[in-house]
Formats: sequence, structure tokens, C-alpha cells
Amino acid sequence: MRAMAAAAATAAAWAQRLAGVRGLLLDVSGVLYDGGDGGGTAIPGSVEAVARIKQSGLKLRFCTNESQKSRDKFVGLLQRLGFDISVNEITSPAPAACQILKERGLRPYLLVHDDVLPEFNEMDTSNPNCVVIADSGDSFSYQNVNKAFRVLVSLENPVLISLGEGRYYKESDGLMLDVGPYVKALEYACDIRAEVVGKPAPEFFQAALREMGLEAHETIMIGDDIVSDVGGAQRCGIRALQVRTGKFRQNACCLKLSMPKSSGHGAFYTHEERCVGMDVSPRRTSGEPQSPQPFIVWTS
Amino acid sequence: MRAMAAAAATAAAWAQRLAGVRGLLLDVSGVLYDGGDGGGTAIPGSVEAVARIKQSGLKLRFCTNESQKSRDKFVGLLQRLGFDISVNEITSPAPAACQILKERGLRPYLLVHDDVLPEFNEMDTSNPNCVVIADSGDSFSYQNVNKAFRVLVSLENPVLISLGEGRYYKESDGLMLDVGPYVKALEYACDIRAEVVGKPAPEFFQAALREMGLEAHETIMIGDDIVSDVGGAQRCGIRALQVRTGKFRQNACCLKLSMPKSSGHGAFYTHEERCVGMDVSPRRTSGEPQSPQPFIVWTS
Repeated sequence: MRAMAAAAATAAAWAQRLAGVRGLLLDVSGVLYDGGDGGGTAIPGSVEAVARIKQSGLKLRFCTNESQKSRDKFVGLLQRLGFDISVNEITSPAPAACQILKERGLRPYLLVHDDVLPEFNEMDTSNPNCVVIADSGDSFSYQNVNKAFRVLVSLENPVLISLGEGRYYKESDGLMLDVGPYVKALEYACDIRAEVVGKPAPEFFQAALREMGLEAHETIMIGDDIVSDVGGAQRCGIRALQVRTGKFRQNACCLKLSMPKSSGHGAFYTHEERCVGMDVSPRRTSGEPQSPQPFIVWTS
Repeated sequence: MRAMAAAAATAAAWAQRLAGVRGLLLDVSGVLYDGGDGGGTAIPGSVEAVARIKQSGLKLRFCTNESQKSRDKFVGLLQRLGFDISVNEITSPAPAACQILKERGLRPYLLVHDDVLPEFNEMDTSNPNCVVIADSGDSFSYQNVNKAFRVLVSLENPVLISLGEGRYYKESDGLMLDVGPYVKALEYACDIRAEVVGKPAPEFFQAALREMGLEAHETIMIGDDIVSDVGGAQRCGIRALQVRTGKFRQNACCLKLSMPKSSGHGAFYTHEERCVGMDVSPRRTSGEPQSPQPFIVWTS
């Protein structure tokens, strides 16, 4: 009976949190799938979750800082993994960066992955007067990063445009450095500040809201990054949920969670007393906090 | 006659600045030579300058953050360029780092250039519990930097030891990213602060003073880096001179110099009203401020 009462309390709490929600903003990497060799793998339950969200009548927008692939390639990969997704459902930073470059007459040196180059096909890259940096993986060679540095250091007013500022993300064989650390490297080398396009920039979330035709208070952002996803959304008045998949780490340097002794379905977790979380995955049976599973941490 | 009076005033000013000096701490890269293909080239006049200093009876210590080569290789290169220099005249960060590793029982993952590995021959690098980072040049591949990140992020108390924190240095074909930007990248990725061994750490300058048997007020540091050389020395009570060779840049992001109209021999330059400089190179005839030449900026 105590278990039933707890479940009822949990359901009531969720009903309150979800009140007035008409749309979801969904991060992709680490929430729906983990990248890796061969393209990556869907996180168990996520293909079905996307399908259920679409059936529910909630509006849905995929909000990703993915900048290693063009949107076409990215959607192709997700479709092969079983997701119901199309290019026009995605908000990503590359098109926003192109808009900025055009408006300001900027000619970028592109420190980006080859696979995302098609997004910049229309840009003039001759005699560069700015640098665009994105998650480049192996293309973050010393030579390439140094080329970007030399472009910046040669400019009177160096402009560095960054597609996101994530610290790291998860691939199937482990954590990988994201674009953020390389942005910090160039900022330090040149004593400048980058302009961030993509999460957590407010413009990114506002663009997603426009595309959905909803107000901030009518939506929830769901992501695995406490800064880019949760923090960015909250600064725009959007509620946010952090999943325990992807880069979520119990003892992450930047994310200290204190775990109460109770665990399992319905357990609540505290995050510096600002977060509580509960298991919403029917697949989750163990309360073991160390191994990421589809588990949601609520940040209010 | 006016020129003679100016020269006399200059000489008097220098006599005052150099009062009580019994030893010199001399940076190497950018001051004595510029690195590059084939090992690099001596900066004109510097071989003779070292010889003159040694003949003068002043004590001399070569204080370098060079961490791409072992001291043996470094000295061999400088000797081939014509310098009178030996290994035991050099203060460099690798031996200091080894001392720290031994004292604290640390087993490093070495994110360093292959050529500096011999300095760490005695270290246990199995199952690493810290990262040592040095100027690694092309070895700063994404894979290598990511390996260092994974070591740090797996540790409960991540320890990152950096051999210097320079922003960039100059090789014959242009500016090159130094270790500092990569330190900032790992600091951001893991939300930690590195421990800097080498300039500008006070311990580095204090070690050099011990090795010379002199007090801080009896010495002058000469370097091309306003932060690592000049700032570091000054924090230890050592006077400092900045040369206009090496990485010195008129419009450097981190070094704004306002140039008065007067120039040439005896001209004074201001640096945020805290620096004045004067030409002490007999080879310098042009007042052109844009192209680095052997020129000293005095920072009081």
C-alpha cells in the first residue's frame, strides 16, 4: 500500500510539473542515441518514446548542437536507427551561423568536420575574416587549430563563432571532447570571447519556439547537458529535464549530485537542492546510480 | 648636440635601472633563437650577446619553458647555432615536474612531445593518476588530447600538471600555439585548474635564483613574453625586460602598446603607462614598430 501511495504522489507531482505543456524540445545525442563507430546506437526505449510523443499530439522539435554532420546526413543516420524524424523538424546551429555570416559580410575559416561542410556551401571562404568552429573530432589536429589561431591573431577585431560550447559528449566507447574546450583554447590564445551559436544561446531556443509556434512556458527542454540544455532553456523561461543517459555522470566534475539512500522507481534525487528526479522508464528496474539509464532528473 | 644629450640621458637611465645587477635570467626561444624547420635560426646579435654577458662577469642562467625537447637535445641545437651554453646552465620545467611526481606518488599520462619523453624516463606511467601536459606541437592530436581528458575525468581528484602556460610562440614561418591553450581546453572540459610548473610560477624563478646563488633584487629577467617572463619575474621581485623579438607583437591581443611618435635610438614607448622602452640594439636603424627587431621594452 505504501508503494501505491508513493506512485500516486509521484503521478501527482508529474501532473503538476507538466501542467500547460504543449510541446517538447528534445536534445538528440545522448538522449536518443549515442554516437560511435558505424554511426552509433539508439538508446533503449528512445525510438518508442519519440513515436509516443508524436502520437500524443504534443508538438516536437529536435534541438541539437550536432555539428559533425550536415542535417541531411544526421537525419539519415537517425532514420536508419529507427527514429521518425525529418530535416525540417531539426533546429541546429549551422544554418543560424550562416545567417550571421551573411548579415555581417563575414568570410569564415571553417574549423569544422568535413561532413558538415555542405552546410556552408554558399559561404565565401576566401581571405577569411573570421573563424567558425564546430565539433570537429579528429579534424581538431594541431595544424588545423593553429591555422584558425593564425587567422584570428592576424585580424584587428578577431571574430570567433562557435557552434555550441559543450564540454564533452558520449560515444559508445567513452567520453569525447566537444567543441567547447577548443573554443576556450582559441579564446585564451587570442584573448577574445567567442560568439556562441546553438545551445545554450537564448537565440537558439527562441528560434526553436518560433518554429513550433509556442511560448516558452508551454514547453519543456529534455537533454543530457546541465549547462547547454537545462541551463540554456531555463534562462529562456523554458522548463527543463535532464536525462541520465548520454554524458550524464554521477560524479561529473561540473555536476555534483547527492544521492539519497532511497532509489528505484519513484525515488527522488537532489542536485544542490535544486533538482529532484524520478524514474520514468518502465525498463529500469535497478536503482544503481553509476550506470546511465533512461532516467530523468528534474531541474526546477 | 641634442642627440648627444639624449644619449647621455639614456645611458644614465640605464645605469639606474641596472644598478646592483649581478646576474641575468635569459629566456631562450624568441630571445636567442626562433624555432622552425631544421631546428631554427639564431636571432641576429644574440650569439654575440651571450658571449659578451659571459665575458662581463655577470652570472647567467637560461630560463626556458622549452618542453618540446629534452635538455640534451635543446642544448645540442643551441650549440649548433653557435651559442656558448651547457645543460647545467639551464632551468627548465621538466625536472621540476619529475620532482613533484616523485614527491606525491603520481603516475603521469604524458601529453608531451616524443622528444621530451627522455626527461620522464624514471617515471612510472602505468595506470596513470594524473596528466602532465607540455608544448606538444603536432602531438596535440584530437586523439591524444582526448586520452588525457579521459584520464582526468576518470579521477576523483583530477591532477593536471602543466609545463608552462604560454599562449603562443614564434617559429620561422609564423606563430604557433603553445601549451597554454591546451591547458585551458582540459581545464574547461573537466572544470579543474592546472598546476603550472615553469614560468610564470614563482617556484621556477626561485629555483633559478638558488642555482645562481643570487637574490631577486640582484637579477634581471629578459624575455619576449609579457606574462610568463616579465610578469612572472616581477611577482618574485625580479626586474624584467621584454625584448621585441620572438612572439613580441605590436598589436598582440594580450599586449597593447601605444607608440609615441618619436622612435629610433633612445625613443621611449609606453605600455598602459607602466612600461617604457628603448632601443639598445646597435643593429636597429629603423623606427618601424610593426616588424619585430632586437628591441627592449622596459617594464618597471
